[in-house]
Amino acid sequence: MNLLLVNPNTTAAITDRLVEEAQRVAAPGTTITGVTARAGFPYIETAAEAMIAAPAALEVIAENLDGHDAVILAAFGDPGLFELKRLLPVPVVGLAEAAMMTASATGYRFGIVSIASRMQAWYQKAVDQFGFHQRCVGFRFLDAPFERIEEVRDRYGERIFALADDLVAEGADSIVFAGAPLAGIAATSGVSLRVPAIDGTWAAVAQAEALARMVQSGALQGLPTTAHGKHSRGLPTPMARLF
Amino acid sequence: MNLLLVNPNTTAAITDRLVEEAQRVAAPGTTITGVTARAGFPYIETAAEAMIAAPAALEVIAENLDGHDAVILAAFGDPGLFELKRLLPVPVVGLAEAAMMTASATGYRFGIVSIASRMQAWYQKAVDQFGFHQRCVGFRFLDAPFERIEEVRDRYGERIFALADDLVAEGADSIVFAGAPLAGIAATSGVSLRVPAIDGTWAAVAQAEALARMVQSGALQGLPTTAHGKHSRGLPTPMARLF
Amino acid sequence: MNLLLVNPNTTAAITDRLVEEAQRVAAPGTTITGVTARAGFPYIETAAEAMIAAPAALEVIAENLDGHDAVILAAFGDPGLFELKRLLPVPVVGLAEAAMMTASATGYRFGIVSIASRMQAWYQKAVDQFGFHQRCVGFRFLDAPFERIEEVRDRYGERIFALADDLVAEGADSIVFAGAPLAGIAATSGVSLRVPAIDGTWAAVAQAEALARMVQSGALQGLPTTAHGKHSRGLPTPMARLF
Amino acid sequence: MNLLLVNPNTTAAITDRLVEEAQRVAAPGTTITGVTARAGFPYIETAAEAMIAAPAALEVIAENLDGHDAVILAAFGDPGLFELKRLLPVPVVGLAEAAMMTASATGYRFGIVSIASRMQAWYQKAVDQFGFHQRCVGFRFLDAPFERIEEVRDRYGERIFALADDLVAEGADSIVFAGAPLAGIAATSGVSLRVPAIDGTWAAVAQAEALARMVQSGALQGLPTTAHGKHSRGLPTPMARLF
Amino acid sequence: MNLLLVNPNTTAAITDRLVEEAQRVAAPGTTITGVTARAGFPYIETAAEAMIAAPAALEVIAENLDGHDAVILAAFGDPGLFELKRLLPVPVVGLAEAAMMTASATGYRFGIVSIASRMQAWYQKAVDQFGFHQRCVGFRFLDAPFERIEEVRDRYGERIFALADDLVAEGADSIVFAGAPLAGIAATSGVSLRVPAIDGTWAAVAQAEALARMVQSGALQGLPTTAHGKHSRGLPTPMARLF
Amino acid sequence: MNLLLVNPNTTAAITDRLVEEAQRVAAPGTTITGVTARAGFPYIETAAEAMIAAPAALEVIAENLDGHDAVILAAFGDPGLFELKRLLPVPVVGLAEAAMMTASATGYRFGIVSIASRMQAWYQKAVDQFGFHQRCVGFRFLDAPFERIEEVRDRYGERIFALADDLVAEGADSIVFAGAPLAGIAATSGVSLRVPAIDGTWAAVAQAEALARMVQSGALQGLPTTAHGKHSRGLPTPMARLF
Repeated sequence: MNLLLVNPNTTAAITDRLVEEAQRVAAPGTTITGVTARAGFPYIETAAEAMIAAPAALEVIAENLDGHDAVILAAFGDPGLFELKRLLPVPVVGLAEAAMMTASATGYRFGIVSIASRMQAWYQKAVDQFGFHQRCVGFRFLDAPFERIEEVRDRYGERIFALADDLVAEGADSIVFAGAPLAGIAATSGVSLRVPAIDGTWAAVAQAEALARMVQSGALQGLPTTAHGKHSRGLPTPMARLF
Repeated sequence: MNLLLVNPNTTAAITDRLVEEAQRVAAPGTTITGVTARAGFPYIETAAEAMIAAPAALEVIAENLDGHDAVILAAFGDPGLFELKRLLPVPVVGLAEAAMMTASATGYRFGIVSIASRMQAWYQKAVDQFGFHQRCVGFRFLDAPFERIEEVRDRYGERIFALADDLVAEGADSIVFAGAPLAGIAATSGVSLRVPAIDGTWAAVAQAEALARMVQSGALQGLPTTAHGKHSRGLPTPMARLF
Repeated sequence: MNLLLVNPNTTAAITDRLVEEAQRVAAPGTTITGVTARAGFPYIETAAEAMIAAPAALEVIAENLDGHDAVILAAFGDPGLFELKRLLPVPVVGLAEAAMMTASATGYRFGIVSIASRMQAWYQKAVDQFGFHQRCVGFRFLDAPFERIEEVRDRYGERIFALADDLVAEGADSIVFAGAPLAGIAATSGVSLRVPAIDGTWAAVAQAEALARMVQSGALQGLPTTAHGKHSRGLPTPMARLF
Repeated sequence: MNLLLVNPNTTAAITDRLVEEAQRVAAPGTTITGVTARAGFPYIETAAEAMIAAPAALEVIAENLDGHDAVILAAFGDPGLFELKRLLPVPVVGLAEAAMMTASATGYRFGIVSIASRMQAWYQKAVDQFGFHQRCVGFRFLDAPFERIEEVRDRYGERIFALADDLVAEGADSIVFAGAPLAGIAATSGVSLRVPAIDGTWAAVAQAEALARMVQSGALQGLPTTAHGKHSRGLPTPMARLF
Repeated sequence: MNLLLVNPNTTAAITDRLVEEAQRVAAPGTTITGVTARAGFPYIETAAEAMIAAPAALEVIAENLDGHDAVILAAFGDPGLFELKRLLPVPVVGLAEAAMMTASATGYRFGIVSIASRMQAWYQKAVDQFGFHQRCVGFRFLDAPFERIEEVRDRYGERIFALADDLVAEGADSIVFAGAPLAGIAATSGVSLRVPAIDGTWAAVAQAEALARMVQSGALQGLPTTAHGKHSRGLPTPMARLF
Repeated sequence: MNLLLVNPNTTAAITDRLVEEAQRVAAPGTTITGVTARAGFPYIETAAEAMIAAPAALEVIAENLDGHDAVILAAFGDPGLFELKRLLPVPVVGLAEAAMMTASATGYRFGIVSIASRMQAWYQKAVDQFGFHQRCVGFRFLDAPFERIEEVRDRYGERIFALADDLVAEGADSIVFAGAPLAGIAATSGVSLRVPAIDGTWAAVAQAEALARMVQSGALQGLPTTAHGKHSRGLPTPMARLF
């Protein structure tokens, strides 16, 4: 199975990081191709930036989709997820949606721990949009300085777990860790949290494989396999062909 | 990977049917063991019957759990699903929950087609309980006589698709087929529906494999691995040990 | 009027305690028969335990229902309440549902004070399931050690009222006290709280009497007076006869 | 026990009709005093008319409250109910609220059958305001001509039951009959409906008695027993004294 | 354009204050006539007081409506707003509704800062009633003593901004300032808050002008231009003529 | 006052049509500049197309924003509205949001009449996203063939009003007409509908003027006046400067 992991951020290093995490959880035989948006922002933090990133992600999806069985939209907040679902001929999975679904599949309520509180408005909208308002206990943000995303887990691990504990105390049955700097942290937090800890990238890989296998076995049909031939203007050819 | 498919109905023939459907979509290397509730009802139709079926299902789960990586609770309506999730040391997946999550992963709103309108109250409660109230366009029921569940698909196929079309006309982006007699019908309905058609059993297998793989790779930790040692009374020993 | 108070916990001392509280508020001429579940847990604390308790409660209900005008399901969290409502030929009332309805009947928003935070997930689900999400300000738990439930009120009374005051400060117009150790505490808290204080047991008695009187006067008809004759397997005879 | 039934409509004949229905379901020893608003409208049909009726109802409540244990606000739509609850020193019960609570206490979803579709906006707001949006399947209105409210039940009984059946087919587990001309019709509809049929007046009496008994036994304290001494202008003295 | 600003409080000084603020934001050519309720309360703080104020406000509206293009109901909490909308032949705008709509038009979630926490229940109901439950982050109240409303802004300005900052930290994208003593404070708070600050009076003027212009240009038709001729009793003539 | 009306469709004729309607309702002294997206689709019908249109609209906004006091995003469905609100230094108003707010300002529930049912999914998402789920009675679509948008009103006027009447019968207190071919139809429908009829373009102009005037008078501060200087890649310069 071939998964196309699209990073809507323009930073290739983040793509590499997420592909590495994705490979940890992928089934044997699954290949993961990482592609990076060419236009947009190094690190998306707001809904407005995500709005720019969505078609930029679609552009590189359109160029690379051939031969892939599913697409992972690899930025928590899932820019353009709903829109892509009804456009592409293969399943599309977002990090936020997959994480929240997995959280719901392991408990009743969840909390979200992430990097910076300036991302809350964008994340909150994702929670509401996917219909998880009543299941989401709330957010906690690290709001601490760091130079490279790699150092976050080591330097602030304890503090991050403390934020997660706060949310458990408020009634969270599981914790979602959001944002590339926290990718993989869930793998070491399980014991101390005593509730399931969920990583968006991992959850998205598992969901993408599940949906792709459903398609392969004929269990999921009716995805939009042919374009409508809708006339467009100014779109790159591979992208225009999808409509 | 070994999945334990538990039929909360007491009819072994239904178990066989569901295991057969489950195997169609299972990944290579996945084994599926079907077990059937010993106490309860041949075919659950109401919430009260489901209430009896839930611990009866847990009883056979407790006896057979050893060596399995995930549990599929194989009756749409998912008797005891929420409760089992926080009790068992492995992921538990329900047909209704998996189908509705898969529907949400392929579109915005879904409709549910099933067998008999006397099941609506039970199903409606499942929709609301899993938080899909705003995503569910509504129900359509076949309400037609049949002798054996095998004959339903052939005899009423066209009528069932017409019910699905009604829901698409009301705004459904995908259709969930619910109930053992409709198991597998989605595999042939995709083209005519032009929206994704989702089968609870298939969706549950895909979800169970996804969650189990997350556990295996360390991506999902924090499930309740050890019992609390809670004192109980009158429970069969294997079941008592889970608490 | 004869009310059947069923304690889904297996501890007869709790049954006695709840019957005693129930009798305080019962109308003249109302008799209250307490019965205790034979199987399950001494003190239910989680949804999974409640799932076991529900049919165990139904078992003793089925044996003792004859001659009773209504059933009180006497554990906050109301195991199996929705399910029993459409099964039994008499009204069934739960402590949580009755308390939250009474709270809604005296103000707009309410808060819930109870014993231990490990019960929150179960209680939260009850709040959501009964549709009181928007009316419930939140929870406060005592989380303090005690040996016998009788000592809680005396030893921690002040602290319990302080928790209630917190919820009033957050916008609660009334306070629900949940859990057998707090039964009756509302009777002494009214003045200091300055908002209505509601006890689940008392509220349930009042509701049960009200519904039973409606049945007696012909004002509430259409309860499921005859069983469907549904075939079952492995159920105790009195219970099987209800389906 | 003494109940004050206040008719917010200015038609004394409706008051008499409602008191008569109320007495059918009242417990032995309960007296029901009917009072009629002096200002407002003969038969309230809209929210704007209800807005006028609310203080007019309070005016006659203030004059007659002495010696009564609870107040029944006897117009479906419950003009001023929320407001009165936090003002009066005794429980206040509304027809719509009591009927919807009773419906919820006997099943999961309910439908409402009433007289004229021009009342829908007002009733819909009551449903939403009391938080029953998710529980209410919908409305059906008779919309047929009649001269005296007494003739409605006899002349249109079959048609009214057919409307109720429609709602059952849409998933209603119980039916609420709303509006004075339908008062009492539930008493004869139970059998044919096969789901509980609920009458607002009857439900309100039962609720009022239940709450009043809770107050009498000390089980419900914290109602606003003393006025705040808030200065007012232009209010009739008995009414002014309540603030 | 002529706007009728109705103060449902009986304090003329508040009317003057609100008219002054209203004139700051009014378009050139807009005149604002302030009228004050004759009956009711000097300063409404609860839902029960608002219930009295609503028809008192309608009474002075009815007397003064002639020649006005829209009505501003000038008390946050908007007593009778929904009811008046379908009664009056011109648009009616409330301070709370206009402020929350403006907040929603500038961001996703908002918080509300006001004077005294005893107003919370009334305000909360307004938030829920207008459907802004999911958009409202929460409340903060000053709860500080003052003699004249004029002094509040100067004496407590910093503290008020700190309360607003709290709500921004909890995820508010904009802040609504509610209550006459805070009227106008938003004009100086913008910079320090870094999120939009919204004043109910200003928002209401802007909305009233917008709706009135829609009517003038034929863009908004179908308002209830003629009364139904509904018979009433005991209503002042100008008011009776509206029904 | 200068309003920038941006048509996210690439068809200039639609822009002209909408500017013409906008001018009908604009206040004296308001100028309206129409600009048309250069990239995207002649007529947006789905969420995926809207996703492409959103940054294309921002591109022409960025080029033309100078000297304008507010932006009207002139396609029902409001592509990118939430995102633009927190980015641009002036108020941004969408047709769907403005229409639904105006509908809510004139009644309790509304219905939406539009052109083609293939737009329902996109529109439904807009309704849910803006929080109007509980206020929206439902949709009706014309689904009839036409050559030029100008002919729709004349050719199908009666049928369109009939669809609106259906929604009124289902409980709508006002009707929103959506889609450029229906622009202006509300001006002639008022009388026959007997409920307010609302046009998105008109409502958006009124809202844009109201918000812009609030900014001019200092009543609305805190809009994002300065860009964050966020580094971007591949964005046209005027657009990049906004971040």
